[in-house]
Amino acid sequence: MTHNVLLLPGDGIGPEIAAQAKRLLRACQDAGLDIQLEEGLVGGCAYDAHGEPLPEETLAKAKAADAILLGAVGGPQWDTLEDLSKRPEKGLLGLRKNLGLFGNLRPAMLYPQLASASSLKPELVAGLDIMIVRELTGGIYFGQPRGIEERNGERVGFNTYVYSESEIERIGRVAFEMAQKRGKKLCSVDKANVLEVTILWREVMNRLAPEYPDVELSHMYVDNAAMQLVRAPKQFDVMVTGNMFGDILSDAAAMLTGSIGMLPSASLNESGQGMYEPCHGSAPDIAGQNMANPLAMMLSVAMMMRYSLGEAAMAERIEAAVGQVLDDGLRTADIASEGMQTVGTDAMGDAVLAAF
Amino acid sequence: MTHNVLLLPGDGIGPEIAAQAKRLLRACQDAGLDIQLEEGLVGGCAYDAHGEPLPEETLAKAKAADAILLGAVGGPQWDTLEDLSKRPEKGLLGLRKNLGLFGNLRPAMLYPQLASASSLKPELVAGLDIMIVRELTGGIYFGQPRGIEERNGERVGFNTYVYSESEIERIGRVAFEMAQKRGKKLCSVDKANVLEVTILWREVMNRLAPEYPDVELSHMYVDNAAMQLVRAPKQFDVMVTGNMFGDILSDAAAMLTGSIGMLPSASLNESGQGMYEPCHGSAPDIAGQNMANPLAMMLSVAMMMRYSLGEAAMAERIEAAVGQVLDDGLRTADIASEGMQTVGTDAMGDAVLAAF
Ligand SMILES: CC(C)[C@H](C(=O)O)[C@@H](O)C(=O)O
Ligand SMILES: CC(C)[C@H](C(=O)O)[C@@H](O)C(=O)O
Repeated sequence: MTHNVLLLPGDGIGPEIAAQAKRLLRACQDAGLDIQLEEGLVGGCAYDAHGEPLPEETLAKAKAADAILLGAVGGPQWDTLEDLSKRPEKGLLGLRKNLGLFGNLRPAMLYPQLASASSLKPELVAGLDIMIVRELTGGIYFGQPRGIEERNGERVGFNTYVYSESEIERIGRVAFEMAQKRGKKLCSVDKANVLEVTILWREVMNRLAPEYPDVELSHMYVDNAAMQLVRAPKQFDVMVTGNMFGDILSDAAAMLTGSIGMLPSASLNESGQGMYEPCHGSAPDIAGQNMANPLAMMLSVAMMMRYSLGEAAMAERIEAAVGQVLDDGLRTADIASEGMQTVGTDAMGDAVLAAF
Repeated sequence: MTHNVLLLPGDGIGPEIAAQAKRLLRACQDAGLDIQLEEGLVGGCAYDAHGEPLPEETLAKAKAADAILLGAVGGPQWDTLEDLSKRPEKGLLGLRKNLGLFGNLRPAMLYPQLASASSLKPELVAGLDIMIVRELTGGIYFGQPRGIEERNGERVGFNTYVYSESEIERIGRVAFEMAQKRGKKLCSVDKANVLEVTILWREVMNRLAPEYPDVELSHMYVDNAAMQLVRAPKQFDVMVTGNMFGDILSDAAAMLTGSIGMLPSASLNESGQGMYEPCHGSAPDIAGQNMANPLAMMLSVAMMMRYSLGEAAMAERIEAAVGQVLDDGLRTADIASEGMQTVGTDAMGDAVLAAF
């Protein structure tokens, strides 16, 4: 069976880490997988080449693919674009929306080899393994009406935070199923003491709960969740929340590990098609310097193998290779520590391939 | 000059910590301040007594006061109230809105005596001193339209995130002025890569900047801000943001100190009238057990002296007394540590009064 994979390197360090993912995909081909690899432009590079952050051609390729591997998008040179619809981020948001990638899985797990990289005291994060399930195609990111307009003689900016029952139910099921496969604890995060949209959210989560009797559902206000992530993150197994809260909490959770350069993510639609990308951004400050950590990108390949291509054994092989490299003491600059060997992007890629 | 102060103990541990604040106010009277003290009901206790979380009488007293001291509101027994407008939180939100308390100051500072209480490694938080300026009467908390309604055969929940230029300018000035009095660095937090309302926010902040040439203004996306607070919190001096992001980030920042039981907050309107309250909540699990930490409430009295009553010397005296008690090794359970003496709410109050 042929797996159609679209690689979208993007901006900043995207191309460098994508190059390592590409080498890894070739190694998977050598190991027997039938992968058909396409490439395309998205983000700032696509705007520069075609005037659009998500060219028609890229979208068509994305729709035809079984899975998409994305590096990262964005950079300061595009931040000043007056027309928001041309910004690199809109390429990413357009892919999510057009492909219906509503289910965003963001694991925040601590590699034991990197425990010292965390800002938190070791005992608070040792063994940390949280899965944040974020709704990705609704909420305030896409709600209408939105804009900036004149009212009573001054300008007013507005956005709409909106969810329907079916949208909530759909992401709720992803989260409950994830909890069933893991520690069987699901914490739904909302602001039901203030926002009506999240009252509905909480209601739907409660309604689903009896269908998953083995999962223990709890609710937490978003401010408290942010606090609890700092105070005692190991209390969490799976967390589920909307697009905006998920954006904030998943970044905070990722940073608890101290090694965001290690964390992959998946964005899935109803048919299992998915987009895979590192949790970190395009890091324009270190782009082109062979300094970026390629591991989150290579682990995104593993996540793709598991969730979209049905190649769990290959996923495990990749993950084992990454573990091996860490055991061997290799570190990129972002996770460097005393007594370990600091290496560049290429050398880290070499090492993973050698251990694969 | 008579200072009219309204004390609203509220729910949970509110009454216990308010009792200590009251003793402190009496001590301030003994020290020569002319304080006229009123009391009132707000939150769950007000709902139980009058069927409303913010009775007319309380609102009238609040309007007449120079400053309000609030304990905390909320508890599980009111979380199931179907009618959101009756929930304890609406009492708090009603006070904020009716009094126009748009400027919320939430300091997150680490007491050197409590450095070990933080989840973070000591070197990352030693000397931490952040001031979060949160807009408190606008944004998605109060935006219209809002609600839950039937659309296309299913229910949909929606809220509106809205800010006008004048609302943004008003809170921006508070933040710039605060930065001028402190480290002269202001970080404005938004999500201008996705939300139009925060594009306007950023624009207005940039427009104000030239009027405060001594302040260095920067911008950060909210997801990155959550991450940076965990990674390297000491990079921040003053942060300014909207109601919802401020709710989340100020709780995360407070928790960085590990001692949220120590942190007061102020909510000010255009005429300097203010409401002062601890950053922590009503902690129903420990209510009535003489276990709550009264220091955030007593430090709220100090903040009130400084910002609303123009009694800076008295504020310093209170703060010095709290510092003394910590130096003496007294700790409530929430900040207990080895070798220190754990005491209850009353005994902690006694100690502060003795040191006053
Ligand atoms: C780049 C931006 C639009 C995006 C988001 O906010 O979703 C990013 O922060 C993320 O979390 O994937
Ligand atoms: C109780 C709640 C409505 C309130 C808020 O969200 O503003 C609280 O969390 C706070 O931060 O003061």
